[in-house]
Amino acid sequence: MKKILNSPDGAVTDYLEGLGLAYPQFVVFDHENRIIHRALPQKVPKVGLVSGGGSGCEPMHSGYVGIGGLDAACPGEVFTSPVPAQIMAATRIANSGKGVLYIIKNYGGEVMNFGLSAEILKREDIAISKVIVDDDCSFPAGQEDRRRGLGATILVEKICGAAAERGDDLQSVTRIGKLVVSNSKSFGISLNSCTTPKLGKPTFEMPHDKMDIGVGLGGDRGIEQIDVGDADKIAHLMIEKPSRELELKVGSEVLLFLSSLGSMPQMELYTLSGSIQKALTNNGIHTTRTLVGEYMTSLDTHGASMTLLKLDRELIELFDAPIATQALRWGI
Amino acid sequence: MKKILNSPDGAVTDYLEGLGLAYPQFVVFDHENRIIHRALPQKVPKVGLVSGGGSGCEPMHSGYVGIGGLDAACPGEVFTSPVPAQIMAATRIANSGKGVLYIIKNYGGEVMNFGLSAEILKREDIAISKVIVDDDCSFPAGQEDRRRGLGATILVEKICGAAAERGDDLQSVTRIGKLVVSNSKSFGISLNSCTTPKLGKPTFEMPHDKMDIGVGLGGDRGIEQIDVGDADKIAHLMIEKPSRELELKVGSEVLLFLSSLGSMPQMELYTLSGSIQKALTNNGIHTTRTLVGEYMTSLDTHGASMTLLKLDRELIELFDAPIATQALRWGI
Repeated sequence: MKKILNSPDGAVTDYLEGLGLAYPQFVVFDHENRIIHRALPQKVPKVGLVSGGGSGCEPMHSGYVGIGGLDAACPGEVFTSPVPAQIMAATRIANSGKGVLYIIKNYGGEVMNFGLSAEILKREDIAISKVIVDDDCSFPAGQEDRRRGLGATILVEKICGAAAERGDDLQSVTRIGKLVVSNSKSFGISLNSCTTPKLGKPTFEMPHDKMDIGVGLGGDRGIEQIDVGDADKIAHLMIEKPSRELELKVGSEVLLFLSSLGSMPQMELYTLSGSIQKALTNNGIHTTRTLVGEYMTSLDTHGASMTLLKLDRELIELFDAPIATQALRWGI
Repeated sequence: MKKILNSPDGAVTDYLEGLGLAYPQFVVFDHENRIIHRALPQKVPKVGLVSGGGSGCEPMHSGYVGIGGLDAACPGEVFTSPVPAQIMAATRIANSGKGVLYIIKNYGGEVMNFGLSAEILKREDIAISKVIVDDDCSFPAGQEDRRRGLGATILVEKICGAAAERGDDLQSVTRIGKLVVSNSKSFGISLNSCTTPKLGKPTFEMPHDKMDIGVGLGGDRGIEQIDVGDADKIAHLMIEKPSRELELKVGSEVLLFLSSLGSMPQMELYTLSGSIQKALTNNGIHTTRTLVGEYMTSLDTHGASMTLLKLDRELIELFDAPIATQALRWGI
């Protein structure tokens, strides 16, 4: 295994410590509780936002903690859900009296552990609501419960972050989060398998002329393996189901979010985003907002995950609102 | 070769077109002249900033075009300098009457072609000055002419961009650019070789237990090959020469800039930046500003390039000033 680490066991801690050292203006790594929270406490009470999930998907979620983003993030071990103790500690820090929203990706462990925390914290009189993110549309009808939380998670964090910052109450922030989820559909592809620090070799071998389609995070296999195609062909394939499920039509406005899964060079990523934008334009769809970069990864996977978010005026306004986090920053 | 492209020959064009489509608020891809320039013309005349270099180092340079950054960038073919025709077209667009600064990495082809362009453009009465960036300190004394332009290039683009934006004249912007260069030293490492679209396989084979130190961009070999070490050991090695050459002492303030060279997962990148920050702190050096991410790459190289910039008040102020480009954005 070739990785720059101090030890496989300490990899997550070292990352979190490094993040806290690099961006002390945004975040603090709370070693004891193993969470990342905002460096600056809120001046006025607001709805708190907490998310979390398996490490290895950096900058998700810790890179989205800051003004206009999350209040706290709970990183689990690599590709492993955070535990209730972390989530409860994060909730207490995020709570300033207006309640806390949990942004939960639809993975069994996350749903369970965030749910447990909410149950336990009822005793502390913290109002908690949840948004379950299941934007992955690679699984066919009848298997909706298997749909994972992908790029929409970050869009919920950004957009609900802005809603909380402007003073919306818990009910309103939750409503907006659910709207983002129902307006978002995602589809991912990959050319290889990632290598986890502990295993030290690729999780599986991909034939040299094949690619996985319908991939999630965490080194999951896709739902199907196909021959590697060119960018234009892959773009068509990636937008097909999301466009259909979102019922996009001529004149629809979308946000196109395309994230490298870790080791796709920007030359390829922008080639793919360009192909996607051209394919959408050919269908009469406007890409009113675009976000292309390394925003949600699966360690060193050579692949990309695309999310289309159907936009309305409110969503555009909230997306455009200022944010100051490690991974997303503008207007501040 | 597994890459998501439409064709190896069209890879650079497809990238540039994709960038222009994704971020039309920042940049325009001028197909005819094969340059990227700002989407919004200047409201008041200012010093123009032009840079360029081989493609494959994305987001350098095209990702730094925008308010507070470059006025135009000239991308060459993969790992190949831009040609004078591109540079001249970029200069004419960047010129609003207050002259144009060329930010040139110390590679033979770039120095020559920017020089040629400046010679030819003398006839057009455009005042042109140059900053040659040679912050790479991996080559020993006596081989200073081989020192390549690395991360300091981006710091010059950011800091001179802010100076130009606040209205500094050409002489002042040039002085600041030269100050950034003389205050910056860089050192890079890599664990593998990149794969260019045309060759389709790694440029060289690295033994599984070895790494290159003193690497540049463009798939260059390092100056030495050593056994792979842990992050703390690599950090010590990376800061040694830059600290000595910058004559850092207890109380010195630096900006730590650490860029992934393309496929280093953020978990490793922040582990390494954390190790570097701790090593600097142990030496009494303050990392007053930090920038860690995928800012300058060499296609899919698994490695990192570190730049230390010795700071003073003016450099901090200019670094903090607003910027709105694809790769760097804050305050706007």
